[in-house]
Amino acid sequence: MKSYEEIALTYNITPESEISDRISRFQSLLQREEIRAAIIVQLIDRFYFSGTIQDGVLIIPAEGDPRYLCRRSVERARAESPLQVVPFKSFKEVPLSLEDLGALHAARLGLELDVIPAALYQRFSSLVEQADWVDLGPLVREVRAIKSPYEIERIRAAGVQVGKVVDTAREVLAEGMREVEFAAILEKRARELGHQGILRMRGFNQELFYGHIITGEHSALMSHIDAPSGGKGINPSIAQGAGFRIIQRSEPVSVDFVGNIGGYLIDQTRLMVIGDLDERLEEGFNQAREIQDRVVQAAEPGTAWSSLYNVAVEAAGEMGVGERFMGPPGEQVRFVGHGVGLEVDEYPFLAPRLEFPLEAGMVFALEPKIFHPGEGITGIEDTYMVTDEGLERLTVTEREIIRV
Amino acid sequence: MKSYEEIALTYNITPESEISDRISRFQSLLQREEIRAAIIVQLIDRFYFSGTIQDGVLIIPAEGDPRYLCRRSVERARAESPLQVVPFKSFKEVPLSLEDLGALHAARLGLELDVIPAALYQRFSSLVEQADWVDLGPLVREVRAIKSPYEIERIRAAGVQVGKVVDTAREVLAEGMREVEFAAILEKRARELGHQGILRMRGFNQELFYGHIITGEHSALMSHIDAPSGGKGINPSIAQGAGFRIIQRSEPVSVDFVGNIGGYLIDQTRLMVIGDLDERLEEGFNQAREIQDRVVQAAEPGTAWSSLYNVAVEAAGEMGVGERFMGPPGEQVRFVGHGVGLEVDEYPFLAPRLEFPLEAGMVFALEPKIFHPGEGITGIEDTYMVTDEGLERLTVTEREIIRV
Repeated sequence: MKSYEEIALTYNITPESEISDRISRFQSLLQREEIRAAIIVQLIDRFYFSGTIQDGVLIIPAEGDPRYLCRRSVERARAESPLQVVPFKSFKEVPLSLEDLGALHAARLGLELDVIPAALYQRFSSLVEQADWVDLGPLVREVRAIKSPYEIERIRAAGVQVGKVVDTAREVLAEGMREVEFAAILEKRARELGHQGILRMRGFNQELFYGHIITGEHSALMSHIDAPSGGKGINPSIAQGAGFRIIQRSEPVSVDFVGNIGGYLIDQTRLMVIGDLDERLEEGFNQAREIQDRVVQAAEPGTAWSSLYNVAVEAAGEMGVGERFMGPPGEQVRFVGHGVGLEVDEYPFLAPRLEFPLEAGMVFALEPKIFHPGEGITGIEDTYMVTDEGLERLTVTEREIIRV
Repeated sequence: MKSYEEIALTYNITPESEISDRISRFQSLLQREEIRAAIIVQLIDRFYFSGTIQDGVLIIPAEGDPRYLCRRSVERARAESPLQVVPFKSFKEVPLSLEDLGALHAARLGLELDVIPAALYQRFSSLVEQADWVDLGPLVREVRAIKSPYEIERIRAAGVQVGKVVDTAREVLAEGMREVEFAAILEKRARELGHQGILRMRGFNQELFYGHIITGEHSALMSHIDAPSGGKGINPSIAQGAGFRIIQRSEPVSVDFVGNIGGYLIDQTRLMVIGDLDERLEEGFNQAREIQDRVVQAAEPGTAWSSLYNVAVEAAGEMGVGERFMGPPGEQVRFVGHGVGLEVDEYPFLAPRLEFPLEAGMVFALEPKIFHPGEGITGIEDTYMVTDEGLERLTVTEREIIRV
């Protein structure tokens, strides 16, 4: 087994077998949906299917070899990707490549309509007039939802990283620090441990900076982001995460931190406190952990995503905290878990009405959080992998309140 | 005059007069373009015109009062924005609001087609079928290009912040550190000084994490981003900025760092070295600074953006470094400066064929950079404001190589 350092402190080149397996699974979906070719533009999708983010467009035909049209840097793209890399200058050259691949006069072509800008879609529409454009977003998500052992190895390492970050949090948390000073120490530690800093979210207007290091009554504030926590933030153009609030004794300190290795993310939240928490807040943590336990017990391959959401909501209802579960009253978000991988908002979503089954190899964060308006948030979050036997936890920090 | 702390370590609420001035300038453009109403969805555009990023849609009619349809958090949006904030749940309610504002049956409506996803554009197209959609991107950029004294105050403070970060760099830079360890110290310092962490870029697939802390031969590597530097990065899914390289004596250490206060950015690059640089690299720095001087001297209100690019390219040609100016041979980017504000890729662009005039109140970074493939980058970058008299520098660090 490789050491943490071997995985985390190295420039991870994606193995050729990974790329060919991903392309082949995606091509099956293209064939199923009768899409003749996929034009992949978004940075993370390009990385997933090619191993490089160098500027360009990746064309994947339903059958045959993909082609990476690369603007810059061609040399880096060739060093990082096993695919055929062809220098190009303008999107105008895309139709030529489609023609070479026998896909120009096809009725159905795929584009990531969920993420590419409208103007770019219009551009492609005028370049390839005869196409019937299909949104690749759901197909890309479907392939990416099942993680390979290579991906799991990186997500596990990211879990070790977050564990080490929490160890640092335990050492340095002290009364009188500003939230952002505390966050800055943890961010620095993560960087030393191989964290890339930038976290990708697929959703438009969604963004996240490491996670939410939030305390006291500010930890119970929601914000614009589609997450079961917000925090004040340091200015209204950010409006989430750590702010200038000064940390006090005996109040909730919520450390929601996204680890990262080789592009892969993991999500964990732990509740900390200097001294002791009020009994009701203590109970709030125990309730969140109990909800997490119940969902874990209910999960196995075949379980519907939505049914796990229902398990959580029913448990919260039984405990009498339904009105302040996953948000304060009136501001609750309607999910209790989300897939993680190269982006932090991947499939599966544990949310209402999503009747898709869990499958072995899926990885998701499960984050029951209970709100105490005016006092704070008490929650827990761990990341799990679906195995044939049920869930295996990939985060490594003990599931307890951390008292300093 | 306010102190750094008063501006930087506070939750900056945008003054009402700022918002009304911005709306009124934008409405003039809507009238000029005969657009009946603008539907603003992107987070930063919403912040600029309203003072809040709370989740929702901002509708600005060509005449009359705007309306902020807010999903969450309504309370925060009302505390941060002087505009009318109306709770809403779904984009389906947008047509009703347009009708209230007398704009539903209009021929021309605006959307930010340059940034909103294609699928969202399709959604709006089906909700408001009779509309002729116009891309608001260029209009929003036009309004945002002229900074107010309030905005300049924040950008200046961000300049002071970057200066302090460079002071820290001077104290800690040492042989044997990894690039990312050095970067982590500077990032932590910036956070303590009120940096929000996240940097916004408008361009699709563009991203940046604080800037580029890059050294030695890795500093001469280009990457996917549309910038005159790249660096190795810590993994190929990031492919820019600091990596795991170990910093040595007598080699270029390029500290390109984006400061940030209250949402506003400033961009600065300084060349550092432990010990002494080779004479040719030393000359490369002097050449970059000389190019910067010439562009500054040529700039005043009315000067075409492109003519400043031409001044830079001609100077580089005269000096015999044209082939490795703004990129190594074959990988050069075609601009020498870019506007900064809430995003790091704002108007003006000092680039070919853009014949628009500089105007007082515009703010841009000017970054001549000379490449020495296999050895490193020697460049300089400062941010300037256009005044009636010419350019005023807003970055504060001395324009010299920093030797430690």
